[in-house]
Amino acid sequence: MQNSYAIGIDVGGTNTDIGLVRDDSKIVARRSLPTGNYALLEPYVQDIMDQIKEMAAEGDPEKGVASLGVAELTGIGMGAPNGNFYTGCVEWAPNLPIRGLLNFKEEFAKHTNIPFVLSNDANAAAYGEYVYGGAKGMDHFIMITLGTGVGSGIVVDGRLVHGSTGTAGELGHNILIPNGRRCTCGRKGCLETYTSARGIVQTYVELRKEKGTPAEAERMEGWIKEGIQDKDITCKMIGDAANAGDPLALETYRMVGDWLGLACANACTFSAPQAIFLMGGPTKVGDPLLIPLRESFEANLLNIYKNKCDIYMSHLDSNEVAILGAAALIKLKI
Amino acid sequence: MQNSYAIGIDVGGTNTDIGLVRDDSKIVARRSLPTGNYALLEPYVQDIMDQIKEMAAEGDPEKGVASLGVAELTGIGMGAPNGNFYTGCVEWAPNLPIRGLLNFKEEFAKHTNIPFVLSNDANAAAYGEYVYGGAKGMDHFIMITLGTGVGSGIVVDGRLVHGSTGTAGELGHNILIPNGRRCTCGRKGCLETYTSARGIVQTYVELRKEKGTPAEAERMEGWIKEGIQDKDITCKMIGDAANAGDPLALETYRMVGDWLGLACANACTFSAPQAIFLMGGPTKVGDPLLIPLRESFEANLLNIYKNKCDIYMSHLDSNEVAILGAAALIKLKI
Repeated sequence: MQNSYAIGIDVGGTNTDIGLVRDDSKIVARRSLPTGNYALLEPYVQDIMDQIKEMAAEGDPEKGVASLGVAELTGIGMGAPNGNFYTGCVEWAPNLPIRGLLNFKEEFAKHTNIPFVLSNDANAAAYGEYVYGGAKGMDHFIMITLGTGVGSGIVVDGRLVHGSTGTAGELGHNILIPNGRRCTCGRKGCLETYTSARGIVQTYVELRKEKGTPAEAERMEGWIKEGIQDKDITCKMIGDAANAGDPLALETYRMVGDWLGLACANACTFSAPQAIFLMGGPTKVGDPLLIPLRESFEANLLNIYKNKCDIYMSHLDSNEVAILGAAALIKLKI
Repeated sequence: MQNSYAIGIDVGGTNTDIGLVRDDSKIVARRSLPTGNYALLEPYVQDIMDQIKEMAAEGDPEKGVASLGVAELTGIGMGAPNGNFYTGCVEWAPNLPIRGLLNFKEEFAKHTNIPFVLSNDANAAAYGEYVYGGAKGMDHFIMITLGTGVGSGIVVDGRLVHGSTGTAGELGHNILIPNGRRCTCGRKGCLETYTSARGIVQTYVELRKEKGTPAEAERMEGWIKEGIQDKDITCKMIGDAANAGDPLALETYRMVGDWLGLACANACTFSAPQAIFLMGGPTKVGDPLLIPLRESFEANLLNIYKNKCDIYMSHLDSNEVAILGAAALIKLKI
C-alpha cells in the first residue's frame, strides 16, 4: 500500500519546526525557522509554505518516492500556544512575537486547499500519542505536558476535547491548592505553579531556605552546593541532583509527585481515562518523580477507578513529539 | 407527525419511579414501586415490566392514542446509582437493597427487545436537560446534582462522557481541599463533603459551635434557635433560615457558594462548557447560594473562559427530572 504524507508544524516562541511526516510516524524531513524573525503573519506563512514545498519536492527516497506536490499531501497540522481548533486562529499567545489574533487557517488557504488543522501544543502532543505513540487504541486518555508551564490534552471517545470555546483541556490551570502559590494567570494555586519547571525550582529554593543545604552536599558529587545561588538553579540541575541522592532534591520531587498524583486522580473523576501520559523536561528525572507520583495517584484515586488507569511516560521521542503531534491533528475525528 | 413514547425509570433507594414519556417531554403516566420490597433482581424487573405494560396499554388519550404495545415504545432508559452505561449493570450500589452486580440489561432483554439504556442518575439528569430542558442545543455543558451526595453528568460534543470504565463524571469526588473533610468514599476533601446537604449541615453546625447562635435568633422568625439541637438541623432548615436573614445560615451558604464556584471554575479547565446546570434540594435556597456561587465562579475562572460559561438552575421540574432524564438516555449519541 502506498504511504501518505502530512505536514506537522510546531510553533514555539523561539523556533518554528516543520516536518514532513510519513503515515508510519517517520519524520522524512524537517526544517526550522526562527519565529522571532517575523513581525507579520503573511511573510511567516509564506516562508513556512516555501519550506513545505521544498521538503515535498525532495520526496521520500527511502520509499522510492521521487517528488511530491503540496496538493498530494494529506494536510497541514499545526500545534501552537493558544491555538484554537474551531477558528484556526492563534489567540493572543503571550510567547509569540507576532501579536494579536492570527488567522493561520485563512492565511494557509491562500496558498493551498489541502486541509489545515490547528490546535494548541498540548492537544497536538496528546493526539500524536494517540495516532503514533503509546495511546494507540486508547479511546480515553489524558496527556499532561510539564515544561515552563503545564499543559494538557484530553481524549474522550477517541476525540480531542476542545469544548465550547476551542480551548478546553487546561489542567495546568486547575486550582489544586485553594489560595496557594500565585500563578502567572493572575490566580492562585494552579497545578502549574507546583509542577512546572518553574514551580519545581521554587519548591527546591523554598526547601533550601527553610532547611539549609545539607552539610554533606559540599562533599557529594552531583549535589547542589550551598555556593550555588538560587537564581542559577534550574529544574534540570534539581533532577540530576535527585538522581545523585541529594536529599533536598529528592524531597522536592516527592512533593511534586504528591501534587501531580492528586491532580491525576482528580482528572479521573472527570473522564475516567484508561491512562495518563506525561511528557516534558521535568519528567525526565524518572523515579524520583514517578515513584511518589504513582503513590500519590493511588492514595488519591476514587475506589471505582482503582486498577483501571495507569500512568505512563510518552512513548514518543521528545525531539519528534511536537511535529508528530501536529501532523496527527490531520487525523482528528470530528 | 406522530408522537413517540419512551420509558424512563429512576431507581432510588426508597422508590422506583417509572414514567411513560412522550417525545415532547410530557410524562403521560407514572407509577412507583417500593425498591425496598425486592431482594432479587428477577421479580423486581418483572414488576417493573408489568407496570410498563399497563401504562402502555392505557395509551395517551390526550393525543388520541388508545393503546400501545411495549414493542411500539422507542426504548427503556434507566438512571440508577452506580449504573454502568457500557455493561448495563448496576455495580454494588450502596443504597440499594438488592446487592451485588445487577445485570439489568440482560434481565430486561428476557422481556422485550426494545433498546435498554442504563446510566447513573446524575448522567441521566444531565441528558434530560439536554433533550428536554435548558441545555437543548448546547453541545458542551455540565450538570451538578446536589443532594445527600453530589453527582455530575458531563456532556462533551453532545455526548455523555462515560469514560473508559462507564463511570466517568464523578465531580462530587473531585478533591477540592487537599486533606480536607473526611468523605464517605474514604478519602478527604471531596467536593461532596462541602456542598452536599450533609456537608451544608456540617458547615452550619461548625459555625454555630465556633460563633454561638446569635442572641437575636431567639426573637427572629425563621432563624435557627439555640434550643434546636445540632442533630435535628436539616439542610432545608438552613435554607429557610438563610432566606429569613439568619446570619449563620447566610454565612454557611456563602461558604458553600465559594466552594462550589471554585469547583465549577475548575471544571471549565477540563471541558470548557458553555453552561453549568445545578439541581437538587440544596440549590432551592436561591440567592443565598447563587450570589456567592457566581462571585466565586468569576473570581476563580481562568481568563480565557470568562463570559463564555454561565451557571443556571435546571429548567426541569424536580419531580420530573429523574424520569425525563432516564427516558432521554434512549436518545444518547454513541
